[in-house]
Amino acid sequence: MERRLLLVALPGIPPVRPGDAVGGLIIQAIAAAGVELETGDVLAVTSKIVSKAEGRLVGLSDVQPSPEARRIAGLCHKDPRLVQVILDESQAVSRVRPGLLIVRHRLGFVCANAGVDRSNVRPPPDGDAHRADREDAVLLLPLDPDRTAAALRRQIHEATGVAAAVIIVDSHGRPHRMGTVGVAVGAAGLPALEDWRGRKDLSGRPLEHTEVGLADQIASAASLLMGQAAEGTPVVLVRGVPFAPRDGTAAELVRPPDLDLYG
Amino acid sequence: MERRLLLVALPGIPPVRPGDAVGGLIIQAIAAAGVELETGDVLAVTSKIVSKAEGRLVGLSDVQPSPEARRIAGLCHKDPRLVQVILDESQAVSRVRPGLLIVRHRLGFVCANAGVDRSNVRPPPDGDAHRADREDAVLLLPLDPDRTAAALRRQIHEATGVAAAVIIVDSHGRPHRMGTVGVAVGAAGLPALEDWRGRKDLSGRPLEHTEVGLADQIASAASLLMGQAAEGTPVVLVRGVPFAPRDGTAAELVRPPDLDLYG
Repeated sequence: MERRLLLVALPGIPPVRPGDAVGGLIIQAIAAAGVELETGDVLAVTSKIVSKAEGRLVGLSDVQPSPEARRIAGLCHKDPRLVQVILDESQAVSRVRPGLLIVRHRLGFVCANAGVDRSNVRPPPDGDAHRADREDAVLLLPLDPDRTAAALRRQIHEATGVAAAVIIVDSHGRPHRMGTVGVAVGAAGLPALEDWRGRKDLSGRPLEHTEVGLADQIASAASLLMGQAAEGTPVVLVRGVPFAPRDGTAAELVRPPDLDLYG
Repeated sequence: MERRLLLVALPGIPPVRPGDAVGGLIIQAIAAAGVELETGDVLAVTSKIVSKAEGRLVGLSDVQPSPEARRIAGLCHKDPRLVQVILDESQAVSRVRPGLLIVRHRLGFVCANAGVDRSNVRPPPDGDAHRADREDAVLLLPLDPDRTAAALRRQIHEATGVAAAVIIVDSHGRPHRMGTVGVAVGAAGLPALEDWRGRKDLSGRPLEHTEVGLADQIASAASLLMGQAAEGTPVVLVRGVPFAPRDGTAAELVRPPDLDLYG
């Protein structure tokens, strides 16, 4: 049988503002696109719209950097207030160099700047001084993206009758390799980490790679269409990924520190 | 405009043996699938069939391990002959632990076991003692996958009139994250590392992530269909990735050691 994968960037999702219901926007976008959800579909949602809906914006002028934040800011040449925001989102600092601050995020994964992003935070169209929309605002990652993925999955199931899987996608840099790639920071309804133990190859030998980062691979695929932030395609429908549904979470994809030889 | 990505696993590619012409097999498979190649298409080819065609098989009983290979084998609890093969494919050892040997491959990237794989090496159907097909054979990565990608691109262009991009895909584990994902170890005809410097977000601010691992994201997407090795879908056609053609190589994706904080 010919195997196919189809990815569709759902059109028509408006800029998201604090308090917006992301689930409702996705359900509307699915309907507007004339797509019928199918069992096995995955909805890949950029973390940015989840963060914005959650109001995860911090105005830097409200931040009082600690002596530790000032010290690290001196090492990485970043705004001490931004460093404070990053440290508040982190369990531990992994590496500091001029221009670089890599941490273990409170959610467990290792990434640059704890995923705190200055880009794509919209200034208010009316010049309103709402705290969350100020020029100096930075955007934090969602509070609990695994929980948000599960909630979106429930809402979409209720609205459409189909229990699609959901992943929340962020872009991370990587040790050893250049360039960012999409990864799953939240997941529901699929094996984020797929266990191939017991599977055999053509010659009957056990497969060597026994765990596959399924949700990360889907996140990278979806990122190919989400890529250019300015084009506003924050949700991608992914159809045709072969997987057995399971209550997986993106937390499965975090290598525990004691198994991480590059901590 | 609705943006779509389509991936099709090309059916009917037979098991590859040393000396086979991979380009010819791909061109036949495209024709047999009734697909018309289009400008902008990417053909993702698993490194395994390239390696097999190149005869990159080594029989472990032919290998005489050095004292250094024996020493490292004691640390990682692997066959000293396998460790010798891995060291022969490597520039440097990165990490050694029981069960784990992570090296900088001669091609520059960091990965487990230098990509040397025992799985999916077919025993000879007729019991023939051909060196390359013995029970104890291991499969090395292709000799020069960037060059192979460029050669396949040329052959496919000549046969079809379309200059599709080509990537050669392997599966790598990762620091910090669990599970393997597809990465590009060879590439031609696309910006393997895409430079977003100068691009702006919705609010006019420069984008924070200025380099994207485009070919790795395509490799991960294609791996979703290549995944189950036993099902034999070694080539995936990827249509709809937005990129500006360029003579990129997978070497661009290798973080130089002096920029790698996790060497």
